[in-house]
Amino acid sequence: MSRGFHQRLRAVWESQDSQLCVGLDPDPSRFPGHLRTSDPAKIPGAIARFCIEIVDATADLVCAFKPQIAHFAAQRAEGALEEVCQHIREQHPQVVLILDAKRGDIGSTAEFYAVEAFDRYLADAVTVNPYLGTDAARPLLERGGVIALCRTSNAGSAEVQDLDVHGRPLYLHVAEMVAQRWSEWGDCALVVGATYPAQIAAVRACVADLPVLVPGIGAQGGDLEASVAAGLDGTGRGLMISSSRQILYSSGGEDFAAAARLEAQSTRAAINQAASASGIR
Amino acid sequence: MSRGFHQRLRAVWESQDSQLCVGLDPDPSRFPGHLRTSDPAKIPGAIARFCIEIVDATADLVCAFKPQIAHFAAQRAEGALEEVCQHIREQHPQVVLILDAKRGDIGSTAEFYAVEAFDRYLADAVTVNPYLGTDAARPLLERGGVIALCRTSNAGSAEVQDLDVHGRPLYLHVAEMVAQRWSEWGDCALVVGATYPAQIAAVRACVADLPVLVPGIGAQGGDLEASVAAGLDGTGRGLMISSSRQILYSSGGEDFAAAARLEAQSTRAAINQAASASGIR
Repeated sequence: MSRGFHQRLRAVWESQDSQLCVGLDPDPSRFPGHLRTSDPAKIPGAIARFCIEIVDATADLVCAFKPQIAHFAAQRAEGALEEVCQHIREQHPQVVLILDAKRGDIGSTAEFYAVEAFDRYLADAVTVNPYLGTDAARPLLERGGVIALCRTSNAGSAEVQDLDVHGRPLYLHVAEMVAQRWSEWGDCALVVGATYPAQIAAVRACVADLPVLVPGIGAQGGDLEASVAAGLDGTGRGLMISSSRQILYSSGGEDFAAAARLEAQSTRAAINQAASASGIR
Repeated sequence: MSRGFHQRLRAVWESQDSQLCVGLDPDPSRFPGHLRTSDPAKIPGAIARFCIEIVDATADLVCAFKPQIAHFAAQRAEGALEEVCQHIREQHPQVVLILDAKRGDIGSTAEFYAVEAFDRYLADAVTVNPYLGTDAARPLLERGGVIALCRTSNAGSAEVQDLDVHGRPLYLHVAEMVAQRWSEWGDCALVVGATYPAQIAAVRACVADLPVLVPGIGAQGGDLEASVAAGLDGTGRGLMISSSRQILYSSGGEDFAAAARLEAQSTRAAINQAASASGIR
């Protein structure tokens, strides 16, 4: 079930005409009133219900769902994450499922992370930190898709990622390592934040048609149009533009799922408009 | 309970005369026969029992316990990890508790990882990947100790970590960033593998008395004597020499905990002998 990350992604880009990824970052303190609870034992159930309603309301509009594991782990809600992932797999099998866990450890431990991502949570791909190098990523690549952090969306990402290595920033060395070496072992992609469109363009120029996951639009203030124009591949696809909070918390009322659908529709339309305006397709 | 990582570490170095860290990497396929089970629902209970017996058999010989979270997550055993951590906190409060999770995410998500490490698992410190920079580490540093990956023990760690940045390898830039910037926000340490004693010496030379966690002795083949000689601070302490598999699986029989104790005793003695031989104390 974890094989074929690229194949599934290319199919859903076409079938749903979407390069939108909805990030599932459940924060119980921002849930609508009817899902709030002060009983810690009931929070995992509320998280599962919230996420599944968002998933069902947006599944035909997206190329991927991306649950972020810290939001579940902080609430002792791994069971809810399993339930959400299984629901996505069974009810919306066309959609790519990305476990956003930013894993990275040496080989013998990476095998256990592969079991977590691909067997327990049924993911097509998992986000991975590149600092440990190719050998640490191999046990994951041999089991499923890997999306490596390249240039992250945080304000301080330049501190390490832009360090000058032989006249080029470190993040481009990482992009090249993933495109050349990691890709020998399995299906890869890269994370480049929408807060840095110029860096998206630089990465695209050095990785051919490798997919790029772009977080940071919406609540983080990234530039959607500039990111799309910078990141498209030669076919006018190539991106997973990820939005989380702006979609999840579009309404604080009982209509949160319907409101999320409207927000997802307008975000998908904006992505497609930016892609058309680019002239590539 | 998560404050005071450095203070607790310095106290236990002295009180137990130990710089040994026991890594808790439970692998049910290597458990002694009486703890093996083919029923997945019983594995978390076996993991908790195995780890707690190891902990009780070695607690007076170590400065730290370091549970590695992937080994629990792959078995749906977060509850067992909570039980082990709570047991360490209650029964062996003098020992430092390190959650080996190698986290690293942007600020809003890092806050959820802080809840996971410091509230849920009661850790004194959590291992963190430095690739995202200082702002991403701050929410963790403000809540507890942070141990940043610097030069990891895997065979391919040089691929990224030794990239030349202005005439110095990347991992020394990371060491300096952690020692200077991260340390403004909280108690830090660095990970440098025992497979690379020369790199331990280079890190020690640039971070004054910052503690260094040294994985890779035992099963990974790192050089204990050379690592200790390279890593001691000016007082003859400064290290957490971590051994996992060689201690946990010293015997495959019902005497596994007693065998682990013997192995921990001889490893602690070897560390102390290497420290004495160095002439620093």
